[in-house]
Amino acid sequence: MTAVVMRKGGLELIETPIPRPGPGEVLVKTLANGICGSDLHAVAHGSELIEGYKAVTGAAPFDLDAQTSLGHEFCAEVVENGPGTRGVHAPGTRVVSVPFLLRQPQPVLLGFGGVDTPGGYADYMLLSEDLLIPVPDNVPTDIAALTEPLAVALHAVNRGALGSDDVPIVIGCGPIGLAVIAVLKMRGIGPIIAADFSPTRRAMATALGADIVVDPRETSPYDSWRSVAAVTDPTRFGRQTVTFPDSAFRPSVVFECVGVPGVIQQILGGAAACTKIVVAGLCMEQDTFYPTFGVFKEIDLVFSVSYTVEEFAQTLSHLAAGELHVDPLITSRIGLADVADAFARLRDPEQDAKIIITPHAR
Amino acid sequence: MTAVVMRKGGLELIETPIPRPGPGEVLVKTLANGICGSDLHAVAHGSELIEGYKAVTGAAPFDLDAQTSLGHEFCAEVVENGPGTRGVHAPGTRVVSVPFLLRQPQPVLLGFGGVDTPGGYADYMLLSEDLLIPVPDNVPTDIAALTEPLAVALHAVNRGALGSDDVPIVIGCGPIGLAVIAVLKMRGIGPIIAADFSPTRRAMATALGADIVVDPRETSPYDSWRSVAAVTDPTRFGRQTVTFPDSAFRPSVVFECVGVPGVIQQILGGAAACTKIVVAGLCMEQDTFYPTFGVFKEIDLVFSVSYTVEEFAQTLSHLAAGELHVDPLITSRIGLADVADAFARLRDPEQDAKIIITPHAR
Repeated sequence: MTAVVMRKGGLELIETPIPRPGPGEVLVKTLANGICGSDLHAVAHGSELIEGYKAVTGAAPFDLDAQTSLGHEFCAEVVENGPGTRGVHAPGTRVVSVPFLLRQPQPVLLGFGGVDTPGGYADYMLLSEDLLIPVPDNVPTDIAALTEPLAVALHAVNRGALGSDDVPIVIGCGPIGLAVIAVLKMRGIGPIIAADFSPTRRAMATALGADIVVDPRETSPYDSWRSVAAVTDPTRFGRQTVTFPDSAFRPSVVFECVGVPGVIQQILGGAAACTKIVVAGLCMEQDTFYPTFGVFKEIDLVFSVSYTVEEFAQTLSHLAAGELHVDPLITSRIGLADVADAFARLRDPEQDAKIIITPHAR
Repeated sequence: MTAVVMRKGGLELIETPIPRPGPGEVLVKTLANGICGSDLHAVAHGSELIEGYKAVTGAAPFDLDAQTSLGHEFCAEVVENGPGTRGVHAPGTRVVSVPFLLRQPQPVLLGFGGVDTPGGYADYMLLSEDLLIPVPDNVPTDIAALTEPLAVALHAVNRGALGSDDVPIVIGCGPIGLAVIAVLKMRGIGPIIAADFSPTRRAMATALGADIVVDPRETSPYDSWRSVAAVTDPTRFGRQTVTFPDSAFRPSVVFECVGVPGVIQQILGGAAACTKIVVAGLCMEQDTFYPTFGVFKEIDLVFSVSYTVEEFAQTLSHLAAGELHVDPLITSRIGLADVADAFARLRDPEQDAKIIITPHAR
């Protein structure tokens, strides 16, 4: 079979044997797989990512010099139920799965493993039967492949724990920022304020449901918040009424979807008191900030990176129920031979958001 | 009357007229006032504090060159109900209050105002009738003066929103760390792990209810957490069972009660995944951290500085009900003439924790 792997900071199109399923595993044909920002990051800044991950967890996520599989946002079709499976999903069934293969002594993270446990940048993959979720007929394959990044966004929104009165501000309209907007829209939370330097990304933010979209060079998203979130609700002490700064506004929840040094302090500076900041961007470098901004404003800084198995399943359910509208996210469909070109294109925010690889469509 | 004020980074013992109550205000005699870390900080690092506060709020909290009142942790006795009051509290009544005077156009923060609105480092003060809470007879005056710092700790614990299963780790056993321990003990949350370099402070942590107290140079508080928080509760996927690192432990909530640069990253490095960190320390300088630690561990960084009027009142109720045991916090009682000496002593953690000023006991 054909696969795209990364090695020494580059991409390689290789031929490799179709893997054989182990106990409890299912061989699947990859129908569609989205290119994730962390795939780009792993190729362009692999050593940083390894060092950063190792510092936190003690283990390297992959080996820079070895061929590493890519692809953790996939929709696949069951080909063969392996030994020790129950045959729950008949061959031909379209499935999605959280990108883990349940091997001992610990699960393999698909999309950053070896070529023997390929990710979605390959014609075939192995998945654990117990993690498979069948894709309802009404969900297109490309959209089903978005379950994973949308689960990341759903989790980020859950981490925000927004009340019905909260006003969300999305800083950065890359794929995760856009997915966060789609989830917020589905939840009926708004008005949604979004900010991005790129006109194309701002147009996508509008298409996905953002109500107020600004170029932060021209308009502060926090000014936009003030203009829509003002309410007359002063604090009462006995008979006297006192209005403190920022207390007469609906609360704001800011989603940091940029991930470069300085953005967190920028948000700490701009956001109102008692704001919750959900950090969904992944900044790999050391960052600086002034704790006083957090303290005096009583900020909640909530970091978010993944999702639970339940959130993953819920995301697919929302897609199947027609509640989550994400068509504008997908900007291109390519074959495995065009992955390197797609990686280059994705550096320009004016061109693409989510590119879907369809291995067998070449 | 006599008062201690700060000016140009020093303390001055001055004679100043007893203030006259304005509309809705009550003249009170200061019975007791605790020395707060922020008082020390305002005197020793006034310009930093002003710059830090101004950067966040746009306004300076006080003027370095002017005489500024100190004292926001007080218990007082009603002397005279001023014009426009209802006379709710008869002269002689002991009272506490959040340190605000409800003047227009905005409330005055007592303890950082001018000499005309003195704080608790003075023989007499003005308080707003609507904010007064009478002190029940069974609460000693010194203990009532602790209502304010204990409310800060109660709020920090509330910000931690600990579940009954959560294991608290208190980093730094200064007055706020110790008060946090007392509040956690009252709530029945434990075992409480505490860490401090000072043997005296560690002994006080034990006296206030900490269960495991470590010198972080010898024992990692996170190792202590692992030793007491382990549970057998692996994650289940269908029929298979997988134990992820750190998932088989009761969750930890870390209280950062130090407030110097580097401590937040130190905690991010040591704490387990999914830890909530309540930042109750007040670091005035720029700080550095690696967002990857927050992201990969999905940390909540919750900043805490003040309390609500309700939390203040609840704190006094807890003291009155005998639920909150804080006697070991108070290490000395002094008169106004000894404040400068007390400030010097408080730099040494081996000597004192909370020093109470009793203006009229000289």
